[in-house]
Amino acid sequence: MTYELYYWDDIPGRGEFVRLVLEETGAPYREMGKGKAGTKAIMDYLGDNSGPYPPFAPPFLKDGELIVSHVANILDYLGPKHGLAPTDEQERIFAKGLQLTLADFVAEAHDTHHPLGIDDYYEDQKAEAKKRSEAFIESRIPKFLGYFEKVIVKNPTENGFVVGDSLTTIDLSLFHVVDGLRYAFPRATSDLDKRYPKVMALHKKVGARPNIATYLASDRRLDFNESDVFRHYSELDQDPA
Amino acid sequence: MTYELYYWDDIPGRGEFVRLVLEETGAPYREMGKGKAGTKAIMDYLGDNSGPYPPFAPPFLKDGELIVSHVANILDYLGPKHGLAPTDEQERIFAKGLQLTLADFVAEAHDTHHPLGIDDYYEDQKAEAKKRSEAFIESRIPKFLGYFEKVIVKNPTENGFVVGDSLTTIDLSLFHVVDGLRYAFPRATSDLDKRYPKVMALHKKVGARPNIATYLASDRRLDFNESDVFRHYSELDQDPA
Repeated sequence: MTYELYYWDDIPGRGEFVRLVLEETGAPYREMGKGKAGTKAIMDYLGDNSGPYPPFAPPFLKDGELIVSHVANILDYLGPKHGLAPTDEQERIFAKGLQLTLADFVAEAHDTHHPLGIDDYYEDQKAEAKKRSEAFIESRIPKFLGYFEKVIVKNPTENGFVVGDSLTTIDLSLFHVVDGLRYAFPRATSDLDKRYPKVMALHKKVGARPNIATYLASDRRLDFNESDVFRHYSELDQDPA
Repeated sequence: MTYELYYWDDIPGRGEFVRLVLEETGAPYREMGKGKAGTKAIMDYLGDNSGPYPPFAPPFLKDGELIVSHVANILDYLGPKHGLAPTDEQERIFAKGLQLTLADFVAEAHDTHHPLGIDDYYEDQKAEAKKRSEAFIESRIPKFLGYFEKVIVKNPTENGFVVGDSLTTIDLSLFHVVDGLRYAFPRATSDLDKRYPKVMALHKKVGARPNIATYLASDRRLDFNESDVFRHYSELDQDPA
């Protein structure tokens, strides 16, 4: 069965967390949000005339007739199905909590450029975005990445993955968050190797996996841009905390 | 087995979503975060000397040796165990996505008083909080509550619950979100009955359930206050959108 991925055209966005899992597994999938027809297809699912299980927002995934929406929920669906989730109960539950913590981190990364709300332009909240970015760089990046560094160090298997002894969706998601942070804040993240060596070693390891490396080199991998969650505005960047 | 709930003392906070589920089920649980000893117990779990599965933040629940953290993850653990989750696969997956959408809504409610970041005092970001609250009241409350209204209307069982034909964790969580919004923004929420009649009928129905009504009347139910997610600052409130 070919998965159908519904996500906004032309941005990696939150859809990227799903794409990385699908690419790693090699599962066939189709991007349903491309072009005008794709946008209309998404809007039809979100609209009043949709079925009894309308998503709140993209990304959402269809597996046959089944609809799954919200990143962490999609990954909790795909992970166990494709061997990208721990089988031990405590590890599986821990990994699910980590996925939610990463979702919170991503939401905070978004708020750096839209602290007053998403309905107003960035240009109308630049001063506030600068303040929020300062706090994000000085306090939140260290808190979140420091936490994941600690979790990798504490992993009893000591093999460099976040949870358990093999790759899970959380490793793929953390890979993308690091990429996004480096795109948005190249100055502030210039010393991540020094501060979070385990996180960065994992990042390198994930990027070198055959299916992921092939994907990253393909035109299916979209560039970050300023319509996305992770945006680069040089005025929001600063030297490391 | 008595559950152990770890959450900051003296605020309903995100712990309340867990408490409501535990109270509805009648499952025995102990509040572990009370007083100085409780705060220390929480910090021990979050600190560097914790075990291999450190939570990022409260609330977290212990069931014997098992640790479960992050609200949606805890409810996804408790729900199926206590008959508060749908058994149908599509409904169960849909309910999980809704729980994550509610978590996003709660995070946005928090940002109304801390748009520039949580490390600075409210008093130092009042002007920005006012702008963010305007956007929240005029655009986000309608978007989220309008969505849940639609979902209840679309529920094929037509029985007033959000998903399926009986109470789930999402009904209990939506109950608390409505309570929190009414506490924080009494003016802006004064006409919810008119705008979201299904959501408000569900709120009434949940509040009247015997175990919930007993809980709400007990001293275990903490008052909202201005150290919490939902805070009442009259200057942030305004007439309905």
